[in-house]
Amino acid sequence: MAPTPTEVDQKAINTIRLLAADMTAKANSGHPGAPMGLAPVAHTLWQYVMKFNSKNPNWFARDRFVLSNGHACALQYSMLYLYGYDYSLNDLEHFRKIGSKTPGHPERELPGIEVTTGPLGQGISNAVGLAIAEKHLAATFNKPDHKIIDNYTYAILGDGCLMEGVSHEAMAVAGHLQLGKLIAIYDDNHITIDGDTKIAFTEDVRKRVASYGWHILEVERGNTDVTEIYNAIEEAKKVDDKPTMICVKTIIGYGSFNQGTHGVHGSPLKADDIAHMKKEWGFNPEESFAVPKEVADLAKSRQEQGVKFEAQWNEEFKAYAAKYPNEAAELSRRIKGELPAGWEKSLPVYKPTDSAVASRKLSQLVLDDINSALPELVSGSADLTGSNLTNWKDVVSFQPPSTKLGDYSGRYMHYGVREHGMVAIMNGMDAYGGIIAAGGTFLNFVSYAAGAVRLSALSGHGIIIIATHDSIGLGEDGPTHQPIETLAHFRATPNVMVWRPADGNETSAAYKVAVESRHTPSILALSRQNLPQLEGSSIEKASKGAYVLNEDVTDPELIIASTGSEVYIARDAAALLAKQGKKVRVVSVPDFYTFDGQSEEYKLSVFPDGVPALSVEVMSAFGWDKYTHEHFNLDHFGASGPFQDIYNALEFTPEGIAKRGIATIDYYKGKAVNSRVHNAFKYLSQRGPGPFEPSH
Amino acid sequence: MAPTPTEVDQKAINTIRLLAADMTAKANSGHPGAPMGLAPVAHTLWQYVMKFNSKNPNWFARDRFVLSNGHACALQYSMLYLYGYDYSLNDLEHFRKIGSKTPGHPERELPGIEVTTGPLGQGISNAVGLAIAEKHLAATFNKPDHKIIDNYTYAILGDGCLMEGVSHEAMAVAGHLQLGKLIAIYDDNHITIDGDTKIAFTEDVRKRVASYGWHILEVERGNTDVTEIYNAIEEAKKVDDKPTMICVKTIIGYGSFNQGTHGVHGSPLKADDIAHMKKEWGFNPEESFAVPKEVADLAKSRQEQGVKFEAQWNEEFKAYAAKYPNEAAELSRRIKGELPAGWEKSLPVYKPTDSAVASRKLSQLVLDDINSALPELVSGSADLTGSNLTNWKDVVSFQPPSTKLGDYSGRYMHYGVREHGMVAIMNGMDAYGGIIAAGGTFLNFVSYAAGAVRLSALSGHGIIIIATHDSIGLGEDGPTHQPIETLAHFRATPNVMVWRPADGNETSAAYKVAVESRHTPSILALSRQNLPQLEGSSIEKASKGAYVLNEDVTDPELIIASTGSEVYIARDAAALLAKQGKKVRVVSVPDFYTFDGQSEEYKLSVFPDGVPALSVEVMSAFGWDKYTHEHFNLDHFGASGPFQDIYNALEFTPEGIAKRGIATIDYYKGKAVNSRVHNAFKYLSQRGPGPFEPSH
Repeated sequence: MAPTPTEVDQKAINTIRLLAADMTAKANSGHPGAPMGLAPVAHTLWQYVMKFNSKNPNWFARDRFVLSNGHACALQYSMLYLYGYDYSLNDLEHFRKIGSKTPGHPERELPGIEVTTGPLGQGISNAVGLAIAEKHLAATFNKPDHKIIDNYTYAILGDGCLMEGVSHEAMAVAGHLQLGKLIAIYDDNHITIDGDTKIAFTEDVRKRVASYGWHILEVERGNTDVTEIYNAIEEAKKVDDKPTMICVKTIIGYGSFNQGTHGVHGSPLKADDIAHMKKEWGFNPEESFAVPKEVADLAKSRQEQGVKFEAQWNEEFKAYAAKYPNEAAELSRRIKGELPAGWEKSLPVYKPTDSAVASRKLSQLVLDDINSALPELVSGSADLTGSNLTNWKDVVSFQPPSTKLGDYSGRYMHYGVREHGMVAIMNGMDAYGGIIAAGGTFLNFVSYAAGAVRLSALSGHGIIIIATHDSIGLGEDGPTHQPIETLAHFRATPNVMVWRPADGNETSAAYKVAVESRHTPSILALSRQNLPQLEGSSIEKASKGAYVLNEDVTDPELIIASTGSEVYIARDAAALLAKQGKKVRVVSVPDFYTFDGQSEEYKLSVFPDGVPALSVEVMSAFGWDKYTHEHFNLDHFGASGPFQDIYNALEFTPEGIAKRGIATIDYYKGKAVNSRVHNAFKYLSQRGPGPFEPSH
Repeated sequence: MAPTPTEVDQKAINTIRLLAADMTAKANSGHPGAPMGLAPVAHTLWQYVMKFNSKNPNWFARDRFVLSNGHACALQYSMLYLYGYDYSLNDLEHFRKIGSKTPGHPERELPGIEVTTGPLGQGISNAVGLAIAEKHLAATFNKPDHKIIDNYTYAILGDGCLMEGVSHEAMAVAGHLQLGKLIAIYDDNHITIDGDTKIAFTEDVRKRVASYGWHILEVERGNTDVTEIYNAIEEAKKVDDKPTMICVKTIIGYGSFNQGTHGVHGSPLKADDIAHMKKEWGFNPEESFAVPKEVADLAKSRQEQGVKFEAQWNEEFKAYAAKYPNEAAELSRRIKGELPAGWEKSLPVYKPTDSAVASRKLSQLVLDDINSALPELVSGSADLTGSNLTNWKDVVSFQPPSTKLGDYSGRYMHYGVREHGMVAIMNGMDAYGGIIAAGGTFLNFVSYAAGAVRLSALSGHGIIIIATHDSIGLGEDGPTHQPIETLAHFRATPNVMVWRPADGNETSAAYKVAVESRHTPSILALSRQNLPQLEGSSIEKASKGAYVLNEDVTDPELIIASTGSEVYIARDAAALLAKQGKKVRVVSVPDFYTFDGQSEEYKLSVFPDGVPALSVEVMSAFGWDKYTHEHFNLDHFGASGPFQDIYNALEFTPEGIAKRGIATIDYYKGKAVNSRVHNAFKYLSQRGPGPFEPSH
């Protein structure tokens, strides 16, 4: 039933506005305008709409909330504080200060924050993922007599989010998938940083979003009318086969002298402006961060209701568990994020005599073998299924049942040609819990998704990006599709694993570590071309990130370090050199990040002092200097042609590598050679989890 | 007047279809389906619509054509061959082979190819840039009696392009800007790689694109009806304040046994299939790459018309030059891509006593000073003008005059919050010629545009990305906005300059080299916080990419190499160390790419043998090993707080750097230290322009 707002509601809304104004003023930094405009929406959501228990922010059945315009986070922190999450007044007073719980944009490790937002367009795309996860787990676990998974996803987004390409991609997916329980609230305030939206944003947003298959609603009195906002949300809930966008007309910086202008977007309000508002609204102009008792009491009443919401659900879950013990146990496991015991035993293992297979195909063989042991795995592709080989036998598509193309329990996502949207959606699925999201595209086009990959790393989403066609080895498609800088880009990103397996065992190792790493995203760089199974590889050794492939060679005079599809060529080069009496160690380096995490002792055992090391990889040498003294890499773009022709032309052949191996040996003869894996002042270094590393 | 197609037109269309089928079959690779479906569109464009002179593909007044679905390039190569561009039958026969003129996706350095396409969504976005450039140069140079700039931009795009976020961004810009001379042809064939579009692409495309302010037209008989296609284009031309999208219904792989399925999308047709089509269409099934004489003659007639088009324009230009000699001289200069003599003299120069200024502001001071000397410079921002400081005093917005917000001669673009679209549009503006495109966002969000930056590098667009807020030094906005991996990403990309200037002279140097480099894109990483003017810096020295700041220190025992906002702190650290009797050289490294291009002699003069080097930069150490032995960098994400608090907490202070300097000196005492800038086997290296480097 629609609330009949009282004076206390109005007071609460003004309290929120003033908290945001005080926070940004005290910080002398931040964005007061959007929080002040959105205060009525936030009040309606927290007080009358959303189910949550602030005493257990991770209660699984809670409604999810995403602030896609993350710069408005003074709003979110104020709400979390008012509604009893673990925030103190002191936290609000230390907005945007080091070590506070109230950083400049919302971060996922904080209580009550579902996803890290700020980079525009990401949050609404994460919300699509949250809503997909809900639909999927509901379809998987609910029973006709027990709707154990049944929450809404709410997102607030602004003009900036709607302009970004990633939101276009994700919102199109949401419309196609008929995500009826996704409710987005568009802060329609006509202001961006550069000024009025008429400068650059004149499209018909409603028509556009409707074209994706969304349900569009309007709220005219967004600055004042809680009932109108509430009724629109109720209206949205009635349409269950379309996501809804509620367009709420607001005035940015409502109440300020400069309301409705971009002057209140990203700069704190002046003291006299805030004092004037306080007077107008019956607050003491001398007092900051004030929460009137009646406002606190109102919020407290909702907070107590939240405790009951969870208690009711716990009862419901008990009844479900009594009737469906297996499903309940499985759901509990997935909620906890525990992997099924022994899942890794289903990973395929190879012998050197097994036939040569492309690593993209090896990846599919892994999926074939692990998908039943790992039911939380949901795969997909950005319209390259037949190339990425991201599906498995008889996998069902995740689709609205009405399409007859699959159903919501399906474990395969057709993301369309939408790489950035795909990864941002995967982040949202991961944030929901109970799902391990994997998704494919060509390695080169993971760059389209760089913004989302970065957030995945920053907020610790253990997603798996299946990135095939990983080098010039893809051949004919040519330089527009051949990654050169891509591995360096993601190797340089904190908290990202970039696996480039050389054979079947290394591919299994990549999956093993990726699946076990629930807070580090993985990119699996996989070949289009066939790779032989290597003597000396194993899941265990490859799981260390780098290892010696030919341990039989003692006292080497050269190390060739290589990855993926070049390792077998490096091995053949070492064999050629052996015929010339040269003792050459071959090191396979499937993942820099994992290797960097090993002990210095282990690292020095792989790259010992006194032995020059040569890297061999058909892409940028950038970053290899941390392990190797010399490089046989590519510092230019590739070429279109059959793969073997390209490798031959560029001399990535046993002979070409051997030639450079000899040159390296000759150059370093008689010179002092220090291993590059030493670290002179580790104790002073910022490497590894630093003071501000996300806690998970 | 609409053409009355004859049997020869039909024969020409089937010739195009068969050429594409033969090319992909012979290559045993590539995409026959789209070319076969689009043959009638291509025939109509080349034979009846577009103005071009194949004997001078760079004739400035030509219509521009972009194949946004670049995988359909067998179509484009066939057309270029038929219409007399410098392609031979042999080129078609060597489709997708190394060294051929017919690589797997169209590349800009080839005759008749305006922009490199293939990565979906880029081409249509480039087309928006081409159309913007036309509008701008027309508004700048045309006179009431002389429309010297007056061409159309045509683009073909497919479902994949429309799904990509970048096309959403750029098409929204095109609608807002009312680019009436942009005509996009949508290949509406309902097939993507994963199958029918109903799997993932069910939005109402027409409604969506119309929402941006586009004019939408339909062609029902796209497989057969040249007249209907022609009439739609004529209809499109009548609307001059809206770009047009013509939705042409086609059947992918028209004529094949498997037409209309994704089976013909990305795999060559079988021999019997092709033979069957040839028989059906009256071709000799035994013969490949056949062009019937009447088809060749028809194309030849158009080709001859093209020579006349240019001759007419040359006459027109002569008349224009007679009446407006200054404008004609200026336009000629800009068409040739020559910079105004002495433009660089307007770059500001600083003394150490000048006040400390943020490098984003130093950048604006450059723009203030050079904009009148460099009228081809068109700046802009992705909705961060007040933060990026990308505008200059009294600059006029590029806007439709009807908006009263500017006009088409304006030199400032409001791109909206659309980073990827912005850079792709800038690539198109650059491709048109006569413009130097600059555009701003935060450095962290250049990652959103990675796909377009890569193409800029691959195809040699000399654009300038003004990337402010370049590190943790941006402070309060926090880790979501603080780049860690971004410099490494673009330093690892071939043919990209990543300038991080340390003061005013270095900022001027960055602009000097960026403006002079017409075939290398530049990213200028600029600080939010103030930087003092450095003793020892100069435009000349900084233009070498790296240089010794304190040449007075001889026989150093340590080198501290740093960039941007850390250089002055490194200098202060060196001063602290000097008090302890340590001789420390400070090297500023504003751009890796430029420094890598210097002689080994110069590089060794900066980083000599025997001296350990320590890098200091508040972001990823990845890649620094190529110059320095030890690193004081960041391998984790940043933090939200006032900038100086963050620097203090992370010890990026004179004392913190000095401490690590001492540790480095101590560690290397008595050890052999080789400079890292040596290259053991340069002659074998792939560094620098390789065999397949773009020629410009």
